[in-house]
Amino acid sequence: MQDTHIQSAFDRDLEGIQASIMKMGGLVEEAILDAAQSLETRDEELAETVRRRDKVIDALEEQINEEVARVIALRAPTAVDLRIVLSVLKVSGNLERIGDYAKNMAKRTTVLSSMAPVHDAAAALRRMAREVERMLKDALDAYIQRDAGLARDVMERDRDIDQMYNALFREYLTFMMEDPRNITPCMHLHFIAKNTERMGDHVTSIAEQVIYLVTGEMPEDTRPKGDQTSVNPDLSQGAAS
Amino acid sequence: MQDTHIQSAFDRDLEGIQASIMKMGGLVEEAILDAAQSLETRDEELAETVRRRDKVIDALEEQINEEVARVIALRAPTAVDLRIVLSVLKVSGNLERIGDYAKNMAKRTTVLSSMAPVHDAAAALRRMAREVERMLKDALDAYIQRDAGLARDVMERDRDIDQMYNALFREYLTFMMEDPRNITPCMHLHFIAKNTERMGDHVTSIAEQVIYLVTGEMPEDTRPKGDQTSVNPDLSQGAAS
Repeated sequence: MQDTHIQSAFDRDLEGIQASIMKMGGLVEEAILDAAQSLETRDEELAETVRRRDKVIDALEEQINEEVARVIALRAPTAVDLRIVLSVLKVSGNLERIGDYAKNMAKRTTVLSSMAPVHDAAAALRRMAREVERMLKDALDAYIQRDAGLARDVMERDRDIDQMYNALFREYLTFMMEDPRNITPCMHLHFIAKNTERMGDHVTSIAEQVIYLVTGEMPEDTRPKGDQTSVNPDLSQGAAS
Repeated sequence: MQDTHIQSAFDRDLEGIQASIMKMGGLVEEAILDAAQSLETRDEELAETVRRRDKVIDALEEQINEEVARVIALRAPTAVDLRIVLSVLKVSGNLERIGDYAKNMAKRTTVLSSMAPVHDAAAALRRMAREVERMLKDALDAYIQRDAGLARDVMERDRDIDQMYNALFREYLTFMMEDPRNITPCMHLHFIAKNTERMGDHVTSIAEQVIYLVTGEMPEDTRPKGDQTSVNPDLSQGAAS
């Protein structure tokens, strides 16, 4: 009896923590979409909202970390239960970083709004951000439902994000060489593209946690390597080659 | 008696984990210095060594995470002890990210070696990397010795790193506008500078953990905000203004 009682108390605690993770995930998804939209429509008010809301996301992470510490201290989980609880810390950490990148994207809206727009660069970034947001949604669903298949699918899709980034990198180099006035805005756009690619890496890391929880092992170097610009001479030379 | 016994077993476990953290920290410090040196001397062999050794750092992080899980399961620490154990996960996570940035710096050595050198850009980057390495050393000492004063000192010094980054950002913009052939190498150099600045943020995050352990509270928004280029119009316009 005692055992069953402890078990279900732990399950209740875990459900509470997972609800917090989903809430945090929802806010981060919103931040990604709003940041990308503020960039495209040059909506400084929306950008400001994203920046303000990041404090809520940070507070949620701290709250989740405290809940985790409380559950460990109170229920002393072992084996699989402990693995599940510790994975929560990883996932909340990943979500916090993604939120930070979204905040950073929103910050640059203000700067970029003061410059001449560069072709349809913001629209391409928005498509990329939208893809990352969909991946995040699926990664969190996979996490809650312990769905390793969906998690693997998310990891696969990170390749598309990497390709989008590599294409944008080349495009920005071309714009910069065509017209020096594009150099400053393109430096900022490039940052945003890189940060969006990094968001994808953090989503992949959540998907890896799912596979670890389900199989007991981290996927072996299956994480698609993101940024080819540092190793592929064609890309790294860009339009200069 | 029983209590004393459990306490000291926990202390022994903790010492073991902290030894692993120091080992990991030593490897990460080495990675920072070697990566910066490979960049400056265009030493592709050294760059390759840095990339290979990053696998050891990643393996150490996994090992530390497992040790932490084992200690929690075995000793069921509560209150301050639990806080200490959970802080290990944060610190090892920060070290792993810094190692990743060093690896990324080393990767770009190969690409940059194929291009004409840009002024003394690599030397400035090495000075910045050296500062970050010293900060990391002090942050880890502060962590082991629970020295909040030293931790605050580290956080202060992160401002210098941010200033170095902001100066480099402006310099690269100038180089790019002076000569379009500088655009591609400067995009890579800028990335490295930004990643070095991010290393400093992760060092700061370790210092924050120290203050949290000593005082029980996270320092309130004392973290100096790194990148001014996204908010300061002067910097964001760079040489174009």
